[in-house]
Amino acid sequence: MRVHGVHYRAIWLDEDGWSVWIIDQTLLPHRFETLRLTSLDEAARAISQMQVRGAPLIGATAAYGLCLGLRMEPSQAGLERAVAVLAKTRPTAVNLGWALEEMVRAVAPLTPEERVAAAYRRAAALCDEDVETCRRIGLHGLAILRERAASVGRRVNLLTHCNAGWLATVDWGTALAPVYMAHDEGVELHVWVDETRPRNQGAALTAFELGAHGVPHTIVVDNAGGHLMQRGLVDLCLVGTDRTTATGDVANKIGTYLKALAARDNGVPFYVALPHSSIDWKLRDGLREIPIEERSGEEVTRVTGRTTGGVVTVDIAPPGSAAANYAFDVTPARLVTALITDRGLCAASANGLRALFPDLAP
Amino acid sequence: MRVHGVHYRAIWLDEDGWSVWIIDQTLLPHRFETLRLTSLDEAARAISQMQVRGAPLIGATAAYGLCLGLRMEPSQAGLERAVAVLAKTRPTAVNLGWALEEMVRAVAPLTPEERVAAAYRRAAALCDEDVETCRRIGLHGLAILRERAASVGRRVNLLTHCNAGWLATVDWGTALAPVYMAHDEGVELHVWVDETRPRNQGAALTAFELGAHGVPHTIVVDNAGGHLMQRGLVDLCLVGTDRTTATGDVANKIGTYLKALAARDNGVPFYVALPHSSIDWKLRDGLREIPIEERSGEEVTRVTGRTTGGVVTVDIAPPGSAAANYAFDVTPARLVTALITDRGLCAASANGLRALFPDLAP
Repeated sequence: MRVHGVHYRAIWLDEDGWSVWIIDQTLLPHRFETLRLTSLDEAARAISQMQVRGAPLIGATAAYGLCLGLRMEPSQAGLERAVAVLAKTRPTAVNLGWALEEMVRAVAPLTPEERVAAAYRRAAALCDEDVETCRRIGLHGLAILRERAASVGRRVNLLTHCNAGWLATVDWGTALAPVYMAHDEGVELHVWVDETRPRNQGAALTAFELGAHGVPHTIVVDNAGGHLMQRGLVDLCLVGTDRTTATGDVANKIGTYLKALAARDNGVPFYVALPHSSIDWKLRDGLREIPIEERSGEEVTRVTGRTTGGVVTVDIAPPGSAAANYAFDVTPARLVTALITDRGLCAASANGLRALFPDLAP
Repeated sequence: MRVHGVHYRAIWLDEDGWSVWIIDQTLLPHRFETLRLTSLDEAARAISQMQVRGAPLIGATAAYGLCLGLRMEPSQAGLERAVAVLAKTRPTAVNLGWALEEMVRAVAPLTPEERVAAAYRRAAALCDEDVETCRRIGLHGLAILRERAASVGRRVNLLTHCNAGWLATVDWGTALAPVYMAHDEGVELHVWVDETRPRNQGAALTAFELGAHGVPHTIVVDNAGGHLMQRGLVDLCLVGTDRTTATGDVANKIGTYLKALAARDNGVPFYVALPHSSIDWKLRDGLREIPIEERSGEEVTRVTGRTTGGVVTVDIAPPGSAAANYAFDVTPARLVTALITDRGLCAASANGLRALFPDLAP
């Protein structure tokens, strides 16, 4: 997608053919800066410190991180070490493990001499596949937005939580791909952007993306969605997911579950967009089985923003008050109207997923 | 309650017998500063700019604001002007109108010469009544906490939203009065404090209050409550309300409705504490009839906190992104386990309220 008129992906290979560029998302929306990754450890740090985030982009960055690791140490030990380092950067997104498995499958059978080039080829292919996956999600979601626009006969109001836009993927986004496509073809829409505390990915990233692309949007606090739905101001909710069980439960940014409850209570459709790589076919009970990352309480008590003097971080809580920081929650399948995947829509259920993915479902 | 070992009320008369002191709550938790009000306009500004907030404290401040107005202009025209100025400071809290009506009833029949002294007497009595009201709410809620502590056999975990503590009233608080009483008598409890965006009254005021009093607590983002309840980490929710309909619907800080939905979905009791003065007996349908204040979007996009250099305000959103700021939402009576009033508990329903308040119900 475009920033300042220039087309960007969220991760790309340098002209040198080996180092990797990302957008440092911790600086958005205050500064747009790109960052060059030149080692396994830099890639791992970019993931764990959330300079890149979003399940698909985490997977893509891990893939290139493995390339950077193999470049230094292409042996079996080097491969295993790189996988171990990358696998522990973030616990919830299933794409991370999926991307690493894909990479290992591509390089493990090869000799150390062949591995680096093969790894870069596979990582590039993974990125291209992710773009195509998001484009397909976009097309399937676009049909929903067109239909909704026709049925309401006025501007469609969506609500989204966190960032499932192009900054969360390689390009297009998952939940926002249909929004961009609909906007581009002239469907009138407006997006309620949940601020998404504690890291404010909605106010910082989703608002930035939508603004840069010219999509009408309004930032609201995470508390507001229920009220908006009670007042008929939301026609549908559209969010991403970091991990989906084989039964249709979805783990997404903390607070997603609350919006799904409000949608159910007010008869608002609640859609979850996902690439099939985020389905964890081994899991049947999201609440019991999906690990929920706990991050530092400082992400809750400290807020970063800009002043006229630059970007600063302020403390908002009294000294001495503890804070807890659960990064995700699980929305049970019963609250999800449908899953929007790269293969099309399906019910958020074991049957729905099995029918759409007979080749992948266990 | 105590701050730095000194007992404070949230509003009090100066030794001069006419000027009024408040705690400037916009500076908490960073600075504890008291502020002297010497005119009607200063009192009105303190309410509209939220240097005081919380339905009971708004009422108390309006009462003293009327005293300050009458002191300058005790005529019928002066009385009417003061009521008009104060009545429009905040739209949602019913206590504001209730306190003004009480004051008018006390002074309107008198001659202008008699009015000022009578107004100060009535305002002082209103404050004392509020303290007694909160003490009674505390005792009724205390019984619930004792019972809950006995049944769970471990530390009781409460979740609260916004600030319904002593800083929202004259003393004790509404939702937090039972918490202070239970803590003081040795009931082991822990409070999950919702940050409460956009003004962060949870992180700023509730955490400050609880910390100053020594009550164990943990700040969480507003998004976290559903997850906490799914994991069995919340034994009960306890919140205040700014306006309660005759049918038991409650308007409270934006986001309260989302917590009530999560409580219902997870079988967690959801209690609302209120003085009877916050019941609006004229209203039957909270969603349709309670006016919801819309405040400046800057409260969403700008966050105030402290740095080593002092208290600063930072922008968190991209330049050019719009923000909407609905201050309250309505939790339907069906989601409320019980109302905790100064007369005891009742069902959140027309019958429940009528049975407890036969003298007030229409």
